[in-house]
Amino acid sequence: MALSARNLLKGKVKDVKKGQVMAEVAIEVAPGVEVVSAITTSSVDRLGLAAGKDIEVVIKATSVMVNA
Amino acid sequence: MALSARNLLKGKVKDVKKGQVMAEVAIEVAPGVEVVSAITTSSVDRLGLAAGKDIEVVIKATSVMVNA
Amino acid sequence: MALSARNLLKGKVKDVKKGQVMAEVAIEVAPGVEVVSAITTSSVDRLGLAAGKDIEVVIKATSVMVNA
Amino acid sequence: MALSARNLLKGKVKDVKKGQVMAEVAIEVAPGVEVVSAITTSSVDRLGLAAGKDIEVVIKATSVMVNA
Amino acid sequence: MALSARNLLKGKVKDVKKGQVMAEVAIEVAPGVEVVSAITTSSVDRLGLAAGKDIEVVIKATSVMVNA
Amino acid sequence: MALSARNLLKGKVKDVKKGQVMAEVAIEVAPGVEVVSAITTSSVDRLGLAAGKDIEVVIKATSVMVNA
Repeated sequence: MALSARNLLKGKVKDVKKGQVMAEVAIEVAPGVEVVSAITTSSVDRLGLAAGKDIEVVIKATSVMVNA
Repeated sequence: MALSARNLLKGKVKDVKKGQVMAEVAIEVAPGVEVVSAITTSSVDRLGLAAGKDIEVVIKATSVMVNA
Repeated sequence: MALSARNLLKGKVKDVKKGQVMAEVAIEVAPGVEVVSAITTSSVDRLGLAAGKDIEVVIKATSVMVNA
Repeated sequence: MALSARNLLKGKVKDVKKGQVMAEVAIEVAPGVEVVSAITTSSVDRLGLAAGKDIEVVIKATSVMVNA
Repeated sequence: MALSARNLLKGKVKDVKKGQVMAEVAIEVAPGVEVVSAITTSSVDRLGLAAGKDIEVVIKATSVMVNA
Repeated sequence: MALSARNLLKGKVKDVKKGQVMAEVAIEVAPGVEVVSAITTSSVDRLGLAAGKDIEVVIKATSVMVNA
């Protein structure tokens, strides 16, 4: 299957910080380019996210802004 | 000033496609890594976005998902 | 692979309305329960979305509100 | 009054998990179809959300993706 | 009923610009303070939005950023 | 630089409530008009947000709904 989301970036998890409900995941998507994701801690556990894991970052185009 | 948004990626506009209200902007954030943004056509015009322009991509962490 | 998004609902496309940049897709997720998605027309074309197609609706939990 | 949000689904709260700032609410919107919402704990308390309560799920169309 | 969305601002529609799928609505929420909303043209028509109409702006807290 | 986000409202921080990962920031954008933002606690610390600080609220137009 394929996602409608226009932004699919390959990356590697660098760090995971879990709170009671929400968690913060730092992901390297290119050398020196890091992306941070805030998802539920429940998803972090379900996906087994931990430093070193290869994942894909998914971002809907309507969530992307520009600073110019 | 500094933005609370956790994701600020330097990039270069590759392509702009304008509709009546919404526009689509393709941006290269690393060699071979492209991000697509859907913003209002009015913002594209106000910021003077066009192929070749150096910009910064801005994404709130709560808008970032993971596929693992 | 598995998505961090907490809401994955099976559905069938009922209708597609395409604009220059954005498109509107109506999807039945349960008998009498319809969901509308606004995605880029480019994604509608790339995924071949058309009435009758079986798809999955994806929604991040942080995008879901409650009226009570 | 009527909301511009295109997705208004009737549902019943199944479970509430509260953190310090954010909470997770599981809602059944059709037999066997569950939706999860991440809202502030403050809103959970203000609306009195608890298992068994009849509510309405609200989702803006631009937050809905498709996997096909 | 009450919305979980934390931001409900009373306002008056100043201008509406309709595209095929998406529309842009400018709303004054305080003297000299204007907010712009991008919603489907279908919702603009369903709600009868036009300059001069008194409405309420609704924004989920997770969509609000800070520049400091 | 200028942001594509259409909503930039000047405001003053009224209150900050920090959780482990997410925080809630209350901001006055006009006399009697308050906006609540849910951002990462890490951003609250990085920007030094505290009651009394003058900031700017940033909201993408696609995140704004209307109740009419």
